[in-house]
Amino acid sequence: MFDKVLIANRGEIALRVLRACRELGIRTVAVYSSVDADSAVVRLADEAVRIGPAGSRQSYLNAAAIVEAARQCGAQAVHPGYGFLSEDADFAEICAGNGLTFIGPPPQVMAALADKSTARALMRRAGLPLPPGSVQTIGTVEQAVAVAAEVGYPVIVKAAAGGGGRGMTVVRDPAALPRAYTRTRAAAQVAFGDDRVYVERYLTAARHVEVQVLCDGHGNGVHLGTRDCSVQRRHQKLVEEAPAPALPPETEAAITAAALRGALSVGFTGAGTVEFLVDDAGRFHFLEINCRIQVEHPVTEMITGIDLVHEQLHIAAGTPLRLSQSDVRPHGVAVECRVNVEDPDRDFVPTPGRLDRFQPPGGPFTRVDTHGHAGYLVSPHYDSLLAKVVAWAPDRELALRRLDRALAEFDVHGPGVRTTIPFARRVLADAAFRAGHYTTALVDRLLAGDPAVPAPARPAQPVVAAGARTHRS
Amino acid sequence: MFDKVLIANRGEIALRVLRACRELGIRTVAVYSSVDADSAVVRLADEAVRIGPAGSRQSYLNAAAIVEAARQCGAQAVHPGYGFLSEDADFAEICAGNGLTFIGPPPQVMAALADKSTARALMRRAGLPLPPGSVQTIGTVEQAVAVAAEVGYPVIVKAAAGGGGRGMTVVRDPAALPRAYTRTRAAAQVAFGDDRVYVERYLTAARHVEVQVLCDGHGNGVHLGTRDCSVQRRHQKLVEEAPAPALPPETEAAITAAALRGALSVGFTGAGTVEFLVDDAGRFHFLEINCRIQVEHPVTEMITGIDLVHEQLHIAAGTPLRLSQSDVRPHGVAVECRVNVEDPDRDFVPTPGRLDRFQPPGGPFTRVDTHGHAGYLVSPHYDSLLAKVVAWAPDRELALRRLDRALAEFDVHGPGVRTTIPFARRVLADAAFRAGHYTTALVDRLLAGDPAVPAPARPAQPVVAAGARTHRS
Repeated sequence: MFDKVLIANRGEIALRVLRACRELGIRTVAVYSSVDADSAVVRLADEAVRIGPAGSRQSYLNAAAIVEAARQCGAQAVHPGYGFLSEDADFAEICAGNGLTFIGPPPQVMAALADKSTARALMRRAGLPLPPGSVQTIGTVEQAVAVAAEVGYPVIVKAAAGGGGRGMTVVRDPAALPRAYTRTRAAAQVAFGDDRVYVERYLTAARHVEVQVLCDGHGNGVHLGTRDCSVQRRHQKLVEEAPAPALPPETEAAITAAALRGALSVGFTGAGTVEFLVDDAGRFHFLEINCRIQVEHPVTEMITGIDLVHEQLHIAAGTPLRLSQSDVRPHGVAVECRVNVEDPDRDFVPTPGRLDRFQPPGGPFTRVDTHGHAGYLVSPHYDSLLAKVVAWAPDRELALRRLDRALAEFDVHGPGVRTTIPFARRVLADAAFRAGHYTTALVDRLLAGDPAVPAPARPAQPVVAAGARTHRS
Repeated sequence: MFDKVLIANRGEIALRVLRACRELGIRTVAVYSSVDADSAVVRLADEAVRIGPAGSRQSYLNAAAIVEAARQCGAQAVHPGYGFLSEDADFAEICAGNGLTFIGPPPQVMAALADKSTARALMRRAGLPLPPGSVQTIGTVEQAVAVAAEVGYPVIVKAAAGGGGRGMTVVRDPAALPRAYTRTRAAAQVAFGDDRVYVERYLTAARHVEVQVLCDGHGNGVHLGTRDCSVQRRHQKLVEEAPAPALPPETEAAITAAALRGALSVGFTGAGTVEFLVDDAGRFHFLEINCRIQVEHPVTEMITGIDLVHEQLHIAAGTPLRLSQSDVRPHGVAVECRVNVEDPDRDFVPTPGRLDRFQPPGGPFTRVDTHGHAGYLVSPHYDSLLAKVVAWAPDRELALRRLDRALAEFDVHGPGVRTTIPFARRVLADAAFRAGHYTTALVDRLLAGDPAVPAPARPAQPVVAAGARTHRS
């Protein structure tokens, strides 16, 4: 195992990684920008190195400064958290070139999966179902129009270099396609330096279901079950849960098997997430593979008892996977709410400021991951995630009640500061959400003030005895 | 289920009960003394009633004021937490007389178990092994001398009305017995208004092992496994864990069966704890039954996934037990440290004061139950427990590392305020503790500055296949 790991991130995930390192006896190096000098991770790390000013480009995206900090401190590995450099194959390459272990998959795997068009092709080859659309990127307006006509509207134009909800345009009206195509290409060129796009059928009223996988560098892999992350606003997740509710057992078996097969087929290593859309007929369609620990990973940890960051560290250190599939026995239900410093009543605009009160919830089966504290200054320079509140219970109904209890007691206050807690509690109170019958349309419906629609009639499902599930292929 | 419950306690346990009520949709009434007016439970409760000044006798022990508060607010039940009135059969009687459900066993069961001498006789009748000693209380010095000579020194003189570590004197030298006997009687008369005492063999180098039970009012009961609470200073627990480590499977099966049999034999209902000493030969001896939720209950919750306060509420509401023994499947290891506001370097003297910083730990598989917050005034009027930090992991080694990680990041500061965190971390680092081979002598050894003694050679244990355990009677 490593003696010392550099944490190339900030906020709650930096603290999360620090905790994992501590528990494994690994010394930690925090890197920070000027505005984060008094952060919890800086206070708790064994060493801390200032790498630049507040702007991310000069600090948390500054590969040279990070590598230099690792060299100075004698760190052997770099954990990138999520965001910033976590999916940057070039950074992984730079780490390797400097004798540092990048905690993530090999750079060439990251590069292949970062290109959504390549990822689609690879996963199709591995037998994963894709949403109807172009496998190759699309070079002309005419081609885009032809593909869209073939797959049917609405469609979504996606940047090959995008992902995580960025670089996408939904098109409902054929007349709007040419302009959307052109604008998405231009925007992708600006955002990613790469204007390639592809066109897919846009699945409305679908569920976003993802599968957590762990793969080592020795050909072994396990999945850790499903998560439902359909509660999204503009493709940003707000509430996540594990396992995905109301997924028929045969779908769950098929989607987890497909995810693991897909990840292993491309030589994936580390902790990854294979994302799917599940349509209203119960069919699943591959979306993308994320090569990093995800914001919502705690829900999987709480139902499996497995510490995903520990496993990332063990895998990166070359240890063969310590788990076999039969060791993964999910139990109960875990639900997470992201607490963002945003005003839900003003289109979720960030409301940075100093917190004069900050008292997170505690108590049974409740987990809070946060870098906040009384006196903390929420900076406008970074994303607005302040805390994740997660509750576990043996059954979903109690998990939801427990999470609501925890959110209700969370005391966050500062001049001008608003949080998404009230909105999250509206989600938890929604009848369709409580019934487990919700799709990516939920948030827009709530924002439009619509009452819950009755749960749709569901196709009759084959009855499978609970004990029989593990014996099926 | 009740609509409204009055919480007749303060501090972390009041908050714990409030959380359970919230999760079950029960409205809460907090009662508080003047100094607790700005406490977390008062802030969070649906209603709050001031019942008296700081002194416990006029507030948290003031049965009339508490019953009147319940009447005013229309509460149907009273949860006494632990301490204060939680083991007061008279208070339970008063509640019943006022149409209030006392959340605990029937008053006559409480009364019988509160008398340690009666409890011993009842448990002997149920077939539980007792430490060698007098079953009846002892009326004369001569009788005490005779019993002590028969059972062998050291002995312990215990007040029949004592319990929970109070009202006991250890006697190592026969010459000291007469004075110890007379003084314990006198002290018991002052403390409990009852000077009856009995004499037992004092088991040195024993382990304190207790069994959590849940019994309903319909003759059903389950046990929730063992806890080890041997890390004690002057009979006050400091570190607790579940399950008890290094207990041979046959001992664990026997002690849990005995505990449940003992509780059911006296018509116990609710959540209770049957306490034992396990001697160096592996024999267990009944100590006492506690009729309340205990400070250390979270470790059992974390290994079973069962919310004990929820179960208390369901049982008190008359619901038949919702669990059968096969539903209780402990998994992993949980360890709790009590964080007391005391100075370990000055004989654990309380160091009350105002907290200017208070930042409890968070993160995976870590639970903190606390009523503290930045700005909180630790009052000299009440016991010094400020927080309980609990960590869970699939195995004991990781649970200990995780707990130490959590304690290391706990930031508590105030002028003159000290906590037991550094001492708890010494316990966690001790070699004998880490090996799971420790007894009630551990704390005194640490305080004396002695290094860890090597683990004693253990008698060979019969090999029992893990899967076979559940099939044994």
